[in-house]
Amino acid sequence: MNYKIDNLQYCNWNREIFKFNNQAGLDAVHVTIAYHEDYDELLLEIKKWDKLFLENSDLIFPGKDFKDIEKAHSEKKTAIFFGFQNCSPIEDNINLVEKIHTLGCRFMQLTYNNQSLLATGCYEKIDSGVTNFGREVIKEMNRVGVVIDMSHSAEKSTFDAIEISEKPIAITHANPSFWHPAKRNKSNELLKTLSQSGGILGLSLYPHHLKNNSSCTLESFCEMIAKTAELMEVDNIGIGSDLCLNQPDSVVEWMRNGTWSKSKNYGEGSKNKPGFPKQPNWFEDARGFSNLENGLKKIGFSENETNGILGNNWYNFYKTI
Amino acid sequence: MNYKIDNLQYCNWNREIFKFNNQAGLDAVHVTIAYHEDYDELLLEIKKWDKLFLENSDLIFPGKDFKDIEKAHSEKKTAIFFGFQNCSPIEDNINLVEKIHTLGCRFMQLTYNNQSLLATGCYEKIDSGVTNFGREVIKEMNRVGVVIDMSHSAEKSTFDAIEISEKPIAITHANPSFWHPAKRNKSNELLKTLSQSGGILGLSLYPHHLKNNSSCTLESFCEMIAKTAELMEVDNIGIGSDLCLNQPDSVVEWMRNGTWSKSKNYGEGSKNKPGFPKQPNWFEDARGFSNLENGLKKIGFSENETNGILGNNWYNFYKTI
Repeated sequence: MNYKIDNLQYCNWNREIFKFNNQAGLDAVHVTIAYHEDYDELLLEIKKWDKLFLENSDLIFPGKDFKDIEKAHSEKKTAIFFGFQNCSPIEDNINLVEKIHTLGCRFMQLTYNNQSLLATGCYEKIDSGVTNFGREVIKEMNRVGVVIDMSHSAEKSTFDAIEISEKPIAITHANPSFWHPAKRNKSNELLKTLSQSGGILGLSLYPHHLKNNSSCTLESFCEMIAKTAELMEVDNIGIGSDLCLNQPDSVVEWMRNGTWSKSKNYGEGSKNKPGFPKQPNWFEDARGFSNLENGLKKIGFSENETNGILGNNWYNFYKTI
Repeated sequence: MNYKIDNLQYCNWNREIFKFNNQAGLDAVHVTIAYHEDYDELLLEIKKWDKLFLENSDLIFPGKDFKDIEKAHSEKKTAIFFGFQNCSPIEDNINLVEKIHTLGCRFMQLTYNNQSLLATGCYEKIDSGVTNFGREVIKEMNRVGVVIDMSHSAEKSTFDAIEISEKPIAITHANPSFWHPAKRNKSNELLKTLSQSGGILGLSLYPHHLKNNSSCTLESFCEMIAKTAELMEVDNIGIGSDLCLNQPDSVVEWMRNGTWSKSKNYGEGSKNKPGFPKQPNWFEDARGFSNLENGLKKIGFSENETNGILGNNWYNFYKTI
């Protein structure tokens, strides 16, 4: 059986986007439901999802484990797995880790771009690694079954998380920095260690993570995957598109600034280009998975490897959670 | 005019303790009203204080600035200044800094023992210094008039705070580590830099910060002050007793563990001595200020220097806030 999985989307959801994912044949999508939200605010987000599930029950349903990916495949629907891009929802409370798991969370980043209570984000000057509280939380995430996601974390913190976690971790959405040296992309050494530890990388289609940004070509992207597969086991590579469809620019401003600053931060953008960047024309939404499939085969990946990258590798990873 | 100030107490407050402070002649006390509380929980704490102020209006009133120290002196009452030993009440929100100032907060530690969103605590393995959010918060604390308190912070974070802050900072309750090498005590280099920057140290009477713990002698404590005055300007030395009168041991357990750990941490205590330690017999409550006065004079401090250490130095510091 072959599964298609996009392991990171943060869209301003509506029926049309669920249809795109359905048309793309996605059996599962990991969706971000929290950045800066605390626990109470998370509960409000989940209420919104209750409504989305009710209104679009012919297209989506809440995913809890790998069996829901199988179920989605047989029912031609998409299983939606919740995740957070920051640890704000657990506040300073270890007991909330189990609670967020009960609410459906299966991935949690230890940090967004800044320092969190758990670890250091990739936009800080100095990275002190996983904190005292972070060590406790990793243990608890392992116990209850929430995957440690280090996509936005700084390097030492990520090495620490790989070492401390008893289960493989994920970088759900990032690219190798050898291809495009963005702060959010990852070093060869880190990717090697991630792969050796059984961890998985979801390659990102977010233009700021791409060589030549919105003008990145499919060929260049697939060449990058081929080179990444020389550093990492090909079985440890998947897709985490970071699609942010239908989002107004006010949202990316909020993602970057939350409530932590009185001055404005532009993150991966700039004062002249503060908004969401335009997707490359071969991946404007999840239906671009078919272009990826062609591109991967063209660059020389086998049928089996291609299917792995497009979803089976994530499916196997979900089995280990 | 001479003022007596204890710039850190965290008691389980009742009328008797306010009387002790009054009998000690304290014109002002900086009291801790938050450790792990978030903003909503802080509001509940302040409601408790509203009741205490109402019921003990003959002994205490809320202090807002140095003029309230003068008022307290002339009315033979004690002005109560609020402070936090962690930044939890501002959550991840820069706008709450002004709000906590409006609510009466005049001192806020950037960290308790662990990593916070602002800086690193003295119990972490690695100290990455003041964070991105921390830099913004220091600017805002300077603007609205909340003193940066680094009593429980790690060393690099404290050097960073001194450098970043445009106003002098405080270490409200700690001792020099040359005298007693506790994690919470401070290095010579740090104390020198603190003093050179106009910052102030409140010497602690908490047994875990004292040489020989509860058996520490008045002579030893005063000798330590004399040596500290060789590192720092004597005008930058005060008292921050860290008195925790009437607190049950469950409180020190909560201070150390909050909700961040499933295993038990003993902080400065140990498994065999998990509770609050016994005060030295010459400083069982604030009335011990008279013993300090004698001890300081005996060790050779002038009348003027003694009065400075016992309160005038803090009074002058309050004038700069």
